[in-house]
Amino acid sequence: MKKHNFNAGPAILPPSVFREASAAVLDFAGGLSILEISHRSTEFTKVLDETTALIRELLNLPEYYEVLYLSGGASTQFFMTAMNLLDADARACYIDTGSWSAKAIKEAKAFGRVEVVGSSKEDGYSYIPKDIQIPTDAAYLHITSNNTIFGTQFHQLPETSVPIVADMSSDILSRPIDINRYGLIYAGAQKNLGPAGVTLVVVNKEMLGKVSRTIPSMLDYRIHISKQSTYNTPPVFPIYVMMLNLRWLKENGGLKAVDKRNKEKAAILYSEIDANPLFKGVVTEAADRSLMNVTFRLEREELTADFLKACATAGCVGVKGHRSVGGFRASIYNAMEKSSVEVLIGVMQEFSKQRG
Amino acid sequence: MKKHNFNAGPAILPPSVFREASAAVLDFAGGLSILEISHRSTEFTKVLDETTALIRELLNLPEYYEVLYLSGGASTQFFMTAMNLLDADARACYIDTGSWSAKAIKEAKAFGRVEVVGSSKEDGYSYIPKDIQIPTDAAYLHITSNNTIFGTQFHQLPETSVPIVADMSSDILSRPIDINRYGLIYAGAQKNLGPAGVTLVVVNKEMLGKVSRTIPSMLDYRIHISKQSTYNTPPVFPIYVMMLNLRWLKENGGLKAVDKRNKEKAAILYSEIDANPLFKGVVTEAADRSLMNVTFRLEREELTADFLKACATAGCVGVKGHRSVGGFRASIYNAMEKSSVEVLIGVMQEFSKQRG
Repeated sequence: MKKHNFNAGPAILPPSVFREASAAVLDFAGGLSILEISHRSTEFTKVLDETTALIRELLNLPEYYEVLYLSGGASTQFFMTAMNLLDADARACYIDTGSWSAKAIKEAKAFGRVEVVGSSKEDGYSYIPKDIQIPTDAAYLHITSNNTIFGTQFHQLPETSVPIVADMSSDILSRPIDINRYGLIYAGAQKNLGPAGVTLVVVNKEMLGKVSRTIPSMLDYRIHISKQSTYNTPPVFPIYVMMLNLRWLKENGGLKAVDKRNKEKAAILYSEIDANPLFKGVVTEAADRSLMNVTFRLEREELTADFLKACATAGCVGVKGHRSVGGFRASIYNAMEKSSVEVLIGVMQEFSKQRG
Repeated sequence: MKKHNFNAGPAILPPSVFREASAAVLDFAGGLSILEISHRSTEFTKVLDETTALIRELLNLPEYYEVLYLSGGASTQFFMTAMNLLDADARACYIDTGSWSAKAIKEAKAFGRVEVVGSSKEDGYSYIPKDIQIPTDAAYLHITSNNTIFGTQFHQLPETSVPIVADMSSDILSRPIDINRYGLIYAGAQKNLGPAGVTLVVVNKEMLGKVSRTIPSMLDYRIHISKQSTYNTPPVFPIYVMMLNLRWLKENGGLKAVDKRNKEKAAILYSEIDANPLFKGVVTEAADRSLMNVTFRLEREELTADFLKACATAGCVGVKGHRSVGGFRASIYNAMEKSSVEVLIGVMQEFSKQRG
């Protein structure tokens, strides 16, 4: 039976990417596996170069932005951004839109003054704070562009001239962005980019070199830039799979086309949630709903286990909501087919007929 | 033509590991790829548990040692060890046996007093310093157990009651060790453990919690221990491949058996280097020669390119020495078959006949 993978991350990737990655594990370069080639080989240098070219093209990056492949996930970027961008006597602004924002705020506090300029915490993170005043002397404004757990997403950036630092782990390359608004973007790969094990950082290099503290080499963006992400051995296979996924994204029309597909998928699923008397959405402001992670609940919570069983029977996996929110979460990243979303909608409709 | 992979890292793994890993990329758990399953799924929890059980069994770990799967490579451990183990007013001792030791020393200096108690730097790192006095109040003694670039290896530990912190990136699980001598062991996976993208840390937890500085969550061993390496999303696929490789190691007799095979492979290759009038070893003290990375040169250096060509013709890849040493380096890790070493020896003998 075909599986429809609604997991929040690690998450679905296109079937063609799995096929090519599987083949490369057996034979990538003249009889050698992708897992045993040198990170300084001609073959892997080509992988790095093509990956960077694809990122540059898809995000339309001006030349003063650098592209890095690091490790440690977004959780490492929570402190690495502050360590590199926030001097001890400077201030940075943060918008608190969920668990990941809260962690970024906590980790940054060890490095400089952190001001939380907006938060929806008191309301269960059920919307994106608006009309926020951001002091113009802030080193940066940090946002979590999409909130995997609560299912909200920034659809408009806050008005500010301050460079934005964004955790885009769960919506990077899912829609066009105005890169010039951002000083730095980071993303753990395992939601919309590739498998777990690599972290993408895109940084305007004019942001760097302005803090006075000593930074360990592996935590200094400038060192990774100077060595083009091979200061140490990078995660070869995760980067390779990311390249395959970026190729797929480009071949399928790039960001405008995937944005259109993502909006269509989200629209039909949210329509069902709103129309079906058995279900309701988690996010209170419809305008802030995520196009990536669709969160919803049953009106009668005692039916939760039965609904999850119905999902499993139809091949829909990963629909259970995060333990801190409960209910359901359907993650419908770039690689998710509209037909899979329709299968889930079918389950909801059938469940409603039988139990409504 | 069969390739014989003498690369220093990322490096050779057993063919059965490549086959199983390739299959898991297509279908690991009931129709899902290993690249798209949740790190909190039952299936991946089993992978983590089995990997840890294998590490514990192979290294014969007492219960107070913890096993962690981190990222960032040994290069991250260079500072993370000092950050977690060395208080600002305490001192740690380091033995400088090559480029990696030197980097560990440099990074540690930002955190406390670092004393280099032994070094072979002035002699081109061509031996392992002996008869070293280590002050008993040192927080730890740091060594690089095997030096990938220069081809030396500790075959006896320095005499000291101080806990040893060892970078074992290139010889971990290649021979039995007395774990009780070590406070902490770390290893980038990509030489003897698995593919690039995961870092193994084995730590005696009594070493932890003794420094007063603030440590970012992702750099604090105690946090990773409390969450059993799932504080954030771990590198799922590299860990899975490591598990496959550990299974292979156990099925093939464990550390005693692999040590015997490694010694046999090294012995026949060093014998050829010593016997063949065209070649000479790089390491000046034969007792310090590495069983993992066999470094050698031509007596007539002008023949270097020709010898590499002869290697390539026979399917031997990765034989070129590190750029800082020159000459040749044959890395013969656990997964390297004796028959592949014999192919390389054949090339040396044939080359000697023709050019000697």
